[in-house]
Amino acid sequence: MCCQVKLGISARHVHVSQEDLEKLYGSGAVLHPIKDLGQPGQYAADERVDLITPKGSIKNVRILGPVRKQSQVELALTDARKLGLNPPVRDSGNLVGTPGITMVGPYGSVELTEGVIIAARHIHFDPATAAQYDLKDQDHVCVKIKGERGLTFEHVLVRVHPSFAPEMHIDTDEGNAALMDSDCMVEIVAK
Amino acid sequence: MCCQVKLGISARHVHVSQEDLEKLYGSGAVLHPIKDLGQPGQYAADERVDLITPKGSIKNVRILGPVRKQSQVELALTDARKLGLNPPVRDSGNLVGTPGITMVGPYGSVELTEGVIIAARHIHFDPATAAQYDLKDQDHVCVKIKGERGLTFEHVLVRVHPSFAPEMHIDTDEGNAALMDSDCMVEIVAK
Repeated sequence: MCCQVKLGISARHVHVSQEDLEKLYGSGAVLHPIKDLGQPGQYAADERVDLITPKGSIKNVRILGPVRKQSQVELALTDARKLGLNPPVRDSGNLVGTPGITMVGPYGSVELTEGVIIAARHIHFDPATAAQYDLKDQDHVCVKIKGERGLTFEHVLVRVHPSFAPEMHIDTDEGNAALMDSDCMVEIVAK
Repeated sequence: MCCQVKLGISARHVHVSQEDLEKLYGSGAVLHPIKDLGQPGQYAADERVDLITPKGSIKNVRILGPVRKQSQVELALTDARKLGLNPPVRDSGNLVGTPGITMVGPYGSVELTEGVIIAARHIHFDPATAAQYDLKDQDHVCVKIKGERGLTFEHVLVRVHPSFAPEMHIDTDEGNAALMDSDCMVEIVAK
C-alpha cells in the first residue's frame, strides 16, 4: 500500500456550542466565517476567545465553526503546559474526564468543567478514496514525513465519512517536530 | 542492530561566552550550577536571560554551563515562531548565517548578530558504547519511540566523544509530539 494525502496542521483552537457562543458573544450571536478549512463546511471564524486557568492564559484563540453540540478546546501539549494542564490525547468529541478551562469572550465567560484535549493525529477520508486505498473507518496507519526533520507517525487513526475530504491532521507540536507546514503531501506507508 | 538509549528533552536554553556573561551579569560574573545535566560537566545555571526580538519576547530562559566560546540560543520552533524568527535546524556550534537576537540580563544586554538555532536531534555516545552498538561519530540512525503517540525519528545524528554519556537529545516540540518525558528509554532501530 502506498498513498499520499495532504497535511493540515491544526493550531490551538476552540469549538463552541450555540449556548456557549451566546454566553461569550451575547444573545443571538453567530459565527462569522473568515476562511474555509480543508474539511467541507468547516471554517475559521472571526470570533476568538481568551483561555484562562489558575496557572496562565492564552489570548485570542480562534473559534472554528460551525457550532457543535458541546464546546471543546484543542491544545498542543506546549500550550497545555503553559496553562498548567495535562489533557489526554483524545479523538475529537471524546471529552469525558478531560480537564476544564475558562473561555472569555467580549460579552461574557464560560466555565467548562471538561473539554480540553490534545487531538489524536488522524486522517479524514471520503468513502471512495478510503476504498481506493483499502482503508476503512477506525483503521490505524503509519505516515512518513520526508525532509530534514523526517519522521514516521504511528497509530494514525483513519476516519471515513461522506462529509470528509482526504486530509491528515496533526497539531503544531507534531508539525514543528517534523518541520512541516500545512498543504505538503505525506505518505501512508503501513497499516 | 537493536540498542536502547536514555532520552533527554531540551527546553529552550542559552549558552553564553564569558564575555557575554559579563555583559549580562556584570564584570567577573560566573555561572552558578543548580542541576547537573545528562552530559558530564554540563549543568543548568541559576542565571537566566530574557530573549527579545522586534516581534516578541520570552522571559527567564535558562543559561546552561559551562561558558562556551560563542553564545548560542537553542529554541523549539514553537518558541521561534512566537519571536517571529525562522532559525535553521543545526548541530550545536554551527551558527554561520543563523538569526540574531537580543539577550537581556540583570546588568546589561547583548545583541547577538547570529546564534539562534533549532537543535538537530542527536545522540551522544562515549566511544566504548558506540563501538558496542557498531556506531561511529557522524552516523545517522532511526529512533523509535513507543507509546500512545509513538513515532520514529529519522536522520538522528550520532556524536561520539570521550566526554559524552549515552543520551538522545530532542527538543520540546519533538518530545511533545511523541508525548514523552525525559529519562525514558528509546530504541535505535536502524542505521
